[in-house]
Amino acid sequence: MKFVTFEKNDGKIRAGFLLDQEHAVDMFEMSDGELPDNLIDFLDNCEENLKKAAFFSSTNKQQGVYSLKEIRLLAPLPLPRSFRDFYAFEAHVKTARENRGLEMIPEWYEIPVYYFSNHLAIKGPGEEIIKPLGCNWLDYELEIACIIGKEGRNIRVADADEYIFGYCILNDWSARDLQRKEMKIGLGPAKGKDFATSIGPWIVTKDELEPLKTGKGFDLSMKARVNGELLSAGNMKEIFYSFGEMIERASAGVTLYPGEIIGSGTVGTGCILELGQDVHRWLLPGDIVELEIDCLGVLQNSIIEGTEVK
Amino acid sequence: MKFVTFEKNDGKIRAGFLLDQEHAVDMFEMSDGELPDNLIDFLDNCEENLKKAAFFSSTNKQQGVYSLKEIRLLAPLPLPRSFRDFYAFEAHVKTARENRGLEMIPEWYEIPVYYFSNHLAIKGPGEEIIKPLGCNWLDYELEIACIIGKEGRNIRVADADEYIFGYCILNDWSARDLQRKEMKIGLGPAKGKDFATSIGPWIVTKDELEPLKTGKGFDLSMKARVNGELLSAGNMKEIFYSFGEMIERASAGVTLYPGEIIGSGTVGTGCILELGQDVHRWLLPGDIVELEIDCLGVLQNSIIEGTEVK
Repeated sequence: MKFVTFEKNDGKIRAGFLLDQEHAVDMFEMSDGELPDNLIDFLDNCEENLKKAAFFSSTNKQQGVYSLKEIRLLAPLPLPRSFRDFYAFEAHVKTARENRGLEMIPEWYEIPVYYFSNHLAIKGPGEEIIKPLGCNWLDYELEIACIIGKEGRNIRVADADEYIFGYCILNDWSARDLQRKEMKIGLGPAKGKDFATSIGPWIVTKDELEPLKTGKGFDLSMKARVNGELLSAGNMKEIFYSFGEMIERASAGVTLYPGEIIGSGTVGTGCILELGQDVHRWLLPGDIVELEIDCLGVLQNSIIEGTEVK
Repeated sequence: MKFVTFEKNDGKIRAGFLLDQEHAVDMFEMSDGELPDNLIDFLDNCEENLKKAAFFSSTNKQQGVYSLKEIRLLAPLPLPRSFRDFYAFEAHVKTARENRGLEMIPEWYEIPVYYFSNHLAIKGPGEEIIKPLGCNWLDYELEIACIIGKEGRNIRVADADEYIFGYCILNDWSARDLQRKEMKIGLGPAKGKDFATSIGPWIVTKDELEPLKTGKGFDLSMKARVNGELLSAGNMKEIFYSFGEMIERASAGVTLYPGEIIGSGTVGTGCILELGQDVHRWLLPGDIVELEIDCLGVLQNSIIEGTEVK
């Protein structure tokens, strides 16, 4: 199933799922209130709610069905409980370091590492991304994310799959100049990444990707286009650490809760920093960035100039 | 006023404030439901709720008053919306770097930097801290935190005070060995800090610290004791960046919400890493750590061995 959150004509924000390529269901309305109106509450009782959703999805009930043309898709999980971003694709780490004349770090091969980013700045498909004040090196990052669907602690790799609800595209927008300066001081990234992270257009439940499992990941082509020009092309199966390994790491001595987001880190070639300025300049207001991952749809955002004054 | 969250004999968790040194008020109960039962909802309408709380505090109503002996204080804000930790005391940064043979970073004097930590792992006064598996270098960090009480974006230093609700003691527990390894890879800290952050015992509203304002901070003595032995002694007024400057930085291009926590970073001498192993060994199960800050009380936690198996 593909889960979404959307705004209706009456301004109400509701969660639900796609019925087909043209229709979404308001699951609260369809189920006469048996299913919640937001995805966090849904995930808090995920197993039971998934069964109910599958049941209602298979009925012929027309109640709560909306054409995608009459609603506005938002981030499928507008207010996740947290957002950890990992660094799990070798090519990205290697190339980004090479570009700065740095060798690969041996420890990278020993443990999957991550940082926490701003889960209160999640953006959805079609949403405009404001170029941060003072940022002249704006970049996208092509990533895949998994959404936790069950509370757990000290989760082993072998059991990790049962804690995953599903997957979605993630764009970890990056202000490279702000990031470079703050990270010299030895913390972060924080201001380099905190202004926006977009996810969507929907969350695909894990069963749909099961047939594509290969090695540590899935056989999913990952692409990024800027103003229609293909810049990034990778495959999710190139990932060095599986989501299971990331979950094991994140949950060691720490409770994970439903609705937390785990980002993969950037796929190889998946950002301008890695490609270099010869391939494409940094992003500017007016640019349209589209991330596409097989089965997960297309996540499009445009850049705008901030009108904010400091 | 001093705001607290506590568990009552009947298991109910309620927010409120101290009436005197021996009594706390369940503000929901005292106000017959006019005030919320948790601090996040209180902060979402902070200005009005503060007026109501002051009114109820001044009445002689005995309803909802509990002796501190019959309740258990929890973290005053058990589930903050986020937790940013800054790095605002020069002595801490300087000494910690000197100990590793490193010079001071020039950029540190230009911008206040921070990282996001795990706001879902907040502990309260008296709560046991589990030593993470595989950690042999467990440390405390003596910090002061401010709690955001009003939504804002691109907040200027001059206006920052109106966005602050109050202050509390913060212990940013640190697994130095895990932190050292992950930070070689260039992100974080994350696993070095994500297992626990304790705050409390209460949040003091900003008006109570106003008379102590001096320079960039407040004239507040800050101390840490391990098993009764005084190890750390600093003063909050030594801070290099004011909370106003930290808020300006955090809110640049980013919306801050009520209930977000901003940590100051460690005061000079405020952790074992800085003091060195000659002064004190790393923390072990059984150790009792007490942080004390003038006006903000004493935050005590003990260390226990994890019984968790991986």
